[in-house]
Amino acid sequence: MPLTPEQQAEIDALRAERRETLRPTVAALEEILYRPIPVLDHGFVRVIDYMGDDAAVVQAARVSYGRGTKRVSEDKGLIDYLMRHRHTTPFEMCEIKYHVKLPIFVARQWIRHRTANVNEYSARYSILDKEFYVPAPDNLAAQSSTNRQGRGDVLAGAEAARVLAILREDAERTYAHYEEMLNEDASGAKRDPARQGLARELARINLTLNTYTQWYWKIDLFNLMHFLSLRADAHAQYEIRVYAETMLETMRRWVPLTHDAFLRYRLGAANLSREALAVVKRMIAGEQVTREGTGLSAREWRELMAVVGREA
Amino acid sequence: MPLTPEQQAEIDALRAERRETLRPTVAALEEILYRPIPVLDHGFVRVIDYMGDDAAVVQAARVSYGRGTKRVSEDKGLIDYLMRHRHTTPFEMCEIKYHVKLPIFVARQWIRHRTANVNEYSARYSILDKEFYVPAPDNLAAQSSTNRQGRGDVLAGAEAARVLAILREDAERTYAHYEEMLNEDASGAKRDPARQGLARELARINLTLNTYTQWYWKIDLFNLMHFLSLRADAHAQYEIRVYAETMLETMRRWVPLTHDAFLRYRLGAANLSREALAVVKRMIAGEQVTREGTGLSAREWRELMAVVGREA
Amino acid sequence: MPLTPEQQAEIDALRAERRETLRPTVAALEEILYRPIPVLDHGFVRVIDYMGDDAAVVQAARVSYGRGTKRVSEDKGLIDYLMRHRHTTPFEMCEIKYHVKLPIFVARQWIRHRTANVNEYSARYSILDKEFYVPAPDNLAAQSSTNRQGRGDVLAGAEAARVLAILREDAERTYAHYEEMLNEDASGAKRDPARQGLARELARINLTLNTYTQWYWKIDLFNLMHFLSLRADAHAQYEIRVYAETMLETMRRWVPLTHDAFLRYRLGAANLSREALAVVKRMIAGEQVTREGTGLSAREWRELMAVVGREA
Amino acid sequence: MPLTPEQQAEIDALRAERRETLRPTVAALEEILYRPIPVLDHGFVRVIDYMGDDAAVVQAARVSYGRGTKRVSEDKGLIDYLMRHRHTTPFEMCEIKYHVKLPIFVARQWIRHRTANVNEYSARYSILDKEFYVPAPDNLAAQSSTNRQGRGDVLAGAEAARVLAILREDAERTYAHYEEMLNEDASGAKRDPARQGLARELARINLTLNTYTQWYWKIDLFNLMHFLSLRADAHAQYEIRVYAETMLETMRRWVPLTHDAFLRYRLGAANLSREALAVVKRMIAGEQVTREGTGLSAREWRELMAVVGREA
Repeated sequence: MPLTPEQQAEIDALRAERRETLRPTVAALEEILYRPIPVLDHGFVRVIDYMGDDAAVVQAARVSYGRGTKRVSEDKGLIDYLMRHRHTTPFEMCEIKYHVKLPIFVARQWIRHRTANVNEYSARYSILDKEFYVPAPDNLAAQSSTNRQGRGDVLAGAEAARVLAILREDAERTYAHYEEMLNEDASGAKRDPARQGLARELARINLTLNTYTQWYWKIDLFNLMHFLSLRADAHAQYEIRVYAETMLETMRRWVPLTHDAFLRYRLGAANLSREALAVVKRMIAGEQVTREGTGLSAREWRELMAVVGREA
Repeated sequence: MPLTPEQQAEIDALRAERRETLRPTVAALEEILYRPIPVLDHGFVRVIDYMGDDAAVVQAARVSYGRGTKRVSEDKGLIDYLMRHRHTTPFEMCEIKYHVKLPIFVARQWIRHRTANVNEYSARYSILDKEFYVPAPDNLAAQSSTNRQGRGDVLAGAEAARVLAILREDAERTYAHYEEMLNEDASGAKRDPARQGLARELARINLTLNTYTQWYWKIDLFNLMHFLSLRADAHAQYEIRVYAETMLETMRRWVPLTHDAFLRYRLGAANLSREALAVVKRMIAGEQVTREGTGLSAREWRELMAVVGREA
Repeated sequence: MPLTPEQQAEIDALRAERRETLRPTVAALEEILYRPIPVLDHGFVRVIDYMGDDAAVVQAARVSYGRGTKRVSEDKGLIDYLMRHRHTTPFEMCEIKYHVKLPIFVARQWIRHRTANVNEYSARYSILDKEFYVPAPDNLAAQSSTNRQGRGDVLAGAEAARVLAILREDAERTYAHYEEMLNEDASGAKRDPARQGLARELARINLTLNTYTQWYWKIDLFNLMHFLSLRADAHAQYEIRVYAETMLETMRRWVPLTHDAFLRYRLGAANLSREALAVVKRMIAGEQVTREGTGLSAREWRELMAVVGREA
Repeated sequence: MPLTPEQQAEIDALRAERRETLRPTVAALEEILYRPIPVLDHGFVRVIDYMGDDAAVVQAARVSYGRGTKRVSEDKGLIDYLMRHRHTTPFEMCEIKYHVKLPIFVARQWIRHRTANVNEYSARYSILDKEFYVPAPDNLAAQSSTNRQGRGDVLAGAEAARVLAILREDAERTYAHYEEMLNEDASGAKRDPARQGLARELARINLTLNTYTQWYWKIDLFNLMHFLSLRADAHAQYEIRVYAETMLETMRRWVPLTHDAFLRYRLGAANLSREALAVVKRMIAGEQVTREGTGLSAREWRELMAVVGREA
C-alpha cells in the first residue's frame, strides 16, 4: 500500500486541522479518520467521513427532538430490539464514506451492492498505476472438488511457483503494453513523437483483472451491515472478505452498540427453516431424529447438524 | 410551530455542546443546526446533521487523497462542469438530515421521492398532537378553471369564511372523537374506566389529512436537488413548495457553490425540445416564425414564447 | 368493492381479448388477471400484468440461453437453494403489477416500501369517491395493554357502537363538506353559481384517513417477498395484512415453486440469535436450561421458548 | 457472435412455442424476441421478456380500470405531455429484460446504472469462453488532444498494426495461461493429473478487461430511457454506445409513441442554462451578442452557439 509522499502529506494535512462542530462525533473513529488501513498487497480502506452514531439510531427510532436517551443501557436495549425485529430505517440514519483501493475483480463483486454511492477513478480520463494483486502463497488455493464456487487446498511446489510467475509476468507484460500503446510519459508528453498514442479508454482494455483501481464508497449503516453480512461471511471470496473484515472493525469503532447487536443477531445467528425448526423441537423433546421424513435435503441436514452442534 | 419547553431545552442542550472533529465542517450551516425554521402554521424544518461540503464533491470527482483543491475558483469551475454535464455521483457524496413537521397530505406527496431515508412518528405507537393545517386567507385558492391541477383566484368573503370554518371545525371534531375513542389521558391512564379504548392504530383513521405528523428525512445532495427541482417549482402545490424553499435556503448555507450552479443550470434553466430548438434557430436567424408547421402544440408554443420572452 | 358498470365492462373487454405471445405464460395467474379480489369493505387487489415465472428465476441464475431446465424437480431444487442462501437477483427477474384500492392510512404504511413503482390516483387532479373504511365489528380492537403497537380484545356493546357511529358520521360529514367546498357536480359544473369552489388540492385535506384511494403498484418478485414477509406477518396491522395475504395467494398462482420455498425458508422460518442458538444446543444435549446467564432478555426468552415449543 | 448449435436450438425452441395470454402484447417486439442482435465483434443484445406497452403508460397515468384510451392520438398526446413535464412513474410501469454479451470493460461502465436488475455469468462458478474484444480498424482511435476523456483520429499504419497485435496476443496469452492454471478440460477432468488446478475464482484474475462476459439485465422503461440518454449520447465511449443504439431500436419496436417522444424531448433536446437563455432572448430580439458579460465560459459559449446554429 505505497502512498506517494504527496498523498501522505495530504492526509497529514487533513488530520492536522481540528474544527469545532455541534454534530455528534465519535472519538474512536476520529482516531483513524483519513488513515489508510492496509488490505491485500497494495489495497487499503480509509474512513473519509461519517454522519451519526449509536444515539442517532435511537433518536430516529423515537423521532425525538434531542439525542436518543440519557442512558447507554436504554440505547442498547432499543438497538437490540430494532435489530432483532429487523427494523431497517433507524439504521439508515447513519452514513459512512470510505476511500478504497482494490483489485478490479474485487470491485466487480462489490459493485453488485447497489444501495451505495460510488465514485471510481476513471481510466477513460486518467492513467492507472502499475499495481496489481498477486495472492500471497497462503492464499493460492486449488479449486474445491466439492463446491464449484469454493477453494480447496493451498497449491504448493512447482504448481504454486508457476501460477505466481504467470500472474506476475502477464500483469507486467500487459501493463508494459498499456504504456506502450498510450505513448505518454508522466507529464502527458508523447514518449515516441512518431506515434499518436491510443486513446486511454481503449488502451486500458489490455489490463488484467487483478489491476488495482480505487473509489469513494458511501453507504448508510443498514446497507453497510447487509454488505458485511454477505462479504464478511465464510462463503465470500477471500479477497473481498478481507476488505469486509477491515470495515467491520471500523464499524465497531463507529457504532459499538449496533456492532454488538449485529454480531449477536446477524453474523452469529442462524436462520432455521420451517422443517429445520420441526426437527429442533423434536430433538429438544428428547427424540432421536434421523433425516428420513423431515423434508430436509442431505445438505440441509448436514448444515442443521452443524448449527446445533451434533454429528451429521 | 410551538415547541414544548422540554423540546426547546433539548435543542438548547445540543447547541451548547461543542465538539472537535477532523471532518469538514460548514460554519454557515452549524449556525442553524438543530434550530427549527417555521413553515406553514405549525410546521418546521430543522437541519439535524450533515456530511460533506462543496469540497467533498470535488474530492469525489477527482478520487483524491486530500481535499478537493486549494482554490475556490477551481472547485467552482469543476462543480459547474459537473452540474452542466449532469454528473450525479459526486453530488451523492454529501448527505443531509432534516427533522420536519408537516401536514399528512404534504407528507403523502413528499414520500413519493423514494431515494431518501425516513423515520416517521408512529401513530400506531404514539398519540398524535392536536395540530392541523388551516390555510392562511391568502392561500385559500379557488380551483383553476384552465388547469385541473392548479389554483385560481383567492377565495373571499362568505365563501372563504365558510371554508375556514369547515376546516377548523371538522379537524377539531374529528380530533376530539379521536381522543374519545382512545380513552387515554396524558399519562396513559383511562379517562373513562368503564371503556377499554380503541387501539391507537385504529383511532387515528378518524383524523383528517391536514393533521400534522413529523419525520426524520435524510438524503444525499444529488437527490435533494432532484426533490427541490420538482418541489420548489411553480407547479408544485403551495404547501409543499414552502418546505422546499426553506430547504433550498439551507442548501445555500451548506454548499454555496453547488447551490449557485443549481440555480443557473437547473432551477433557472429550460429544456428545449428538438422542435423548439428548430424554432429558436429560425428566430435567431431573423425569421418571423408562426406555429404552423413547427410540430409544436398550442400549449408548447405558448410555453416556448414565454421562455424566449416573446408574445405568444 | 362496488365497480361501476363502466369499470366492469372495461375489465370484461380486457378479459375477452386473447393474444398470442412467445413469452412465458402462467395459466393459473391468467385465470384471475384483471379481476378484482375484494379486500376489506370497499378495497380490492387486481393483478394487471406479470413478467416471468418460476423458470425465469432458474434461467437467470444460470444465465442460460433457453428456459431454466427441462425438469420441474431440478428447478425446485435450485429455487430452494437460492432461497436458502438468500440469493436475491434471480428473484428480481420476475415482475408483477397490481391495481389496488385501499384506505389512505394503509397506503401510508405500504408506501414505506420504496423498491416498487407506484402511480396513485391524484386528488389534486380528480375528485375522490365517497368511500371510506369502517372496521367490521370483529376487528374493532381495543388498545393492547402489553404492546403499545398492538391490539387487545374486541370492543363490544355501547363502546363499539359509539366508535362505529363516530367513524361513519365523521367520514360522512367531512366528505359532505369536501363536496360543498369543491362546489362541483359530476359534470364539473358549479353546484352553486355564486361560489368559485375551493381548489381540489386544498379541499381534500378535510378528508379522514380512512378514505379510500387507489394505485397501480409494480414490484419484482424478490421485493414482493420482502413486502409480504413484513406485511403478511402477525405483527402487521390487520388492515394491511389482509392485503398481503391476498397477494400471497396471487403469488402462489404465479410462481408455485418460489411460493413453496418462501413459506418454508421465510414465513415459516425463525432467526435464532447467537445466544439463542447456544441455548438450543444445550437443550438438545439434554440440559435443563434456565434464562439466567444466557444473555437473553425476558422477552427474548419467551420468544425462544415459543419457537422451540417449550413452556417459558 | 457465435452461438453454439445447442444455444441456437434453445432459442429456436422458445420461438416455436406460441402461447395465449390476456396481457398486452407488442407484435413488433415479439418478432425479434429471444433473437440475438449482433454488437461489436462477439457481443449481442437479445430481448428476453417484456411487460406493458405504450397503453400501459397511459393506463397508469390515469389509474384506469381498462386500457389507456381508445384512440392512439389521445395516448400520444398524453405521452408527450408526460415526457415534456418529466413525469417518471407512468414510464416505470413498463419493464423489459435483455440478455447481453459484452466485454468486461463495457460491463464496468454499464453496471454504474443501479436501478436495474442484473444476473451476470459467474467466473467463480464457471469457466469463461475464449472471446475477447478487439476494435475494428475504424475504431482504433488516438487519444484526443483536446478532451482528456475523448478520442481523436483513427490510428493508421504501423502503430495501428502494433496495437492490434498487442491486444490479440496479450488476450490469447493470458487466456492460455488461465486455462493452464485451471488445469481442467471441457468435461471438468484434470488435464495434467499431477496438478491440482487453481481455483476458478483466482485463475480468472489473469484475464484482460476485453474478455467477454454476459448477463441478464432487466429495467423499467423510465430507467431504460435514462440509461439510453447517457449511453446513446455522443460523449459515451463508442463500445457502450453501440449497445445503447441497438437497445434504442428495440425500444422503438416496443413502445413507438414513447420512443418518438423520447427523441423529441430528450435525445434531440437541449438544456439551456439561465445565462444561456438570457443570451438567446437577446439574439432573438435582434441583438448582436458577444460572450463578454454573459456569464458563460468560453466552452459554454461554443456549446451554445453550436446548439443555436451560429458560428462561435
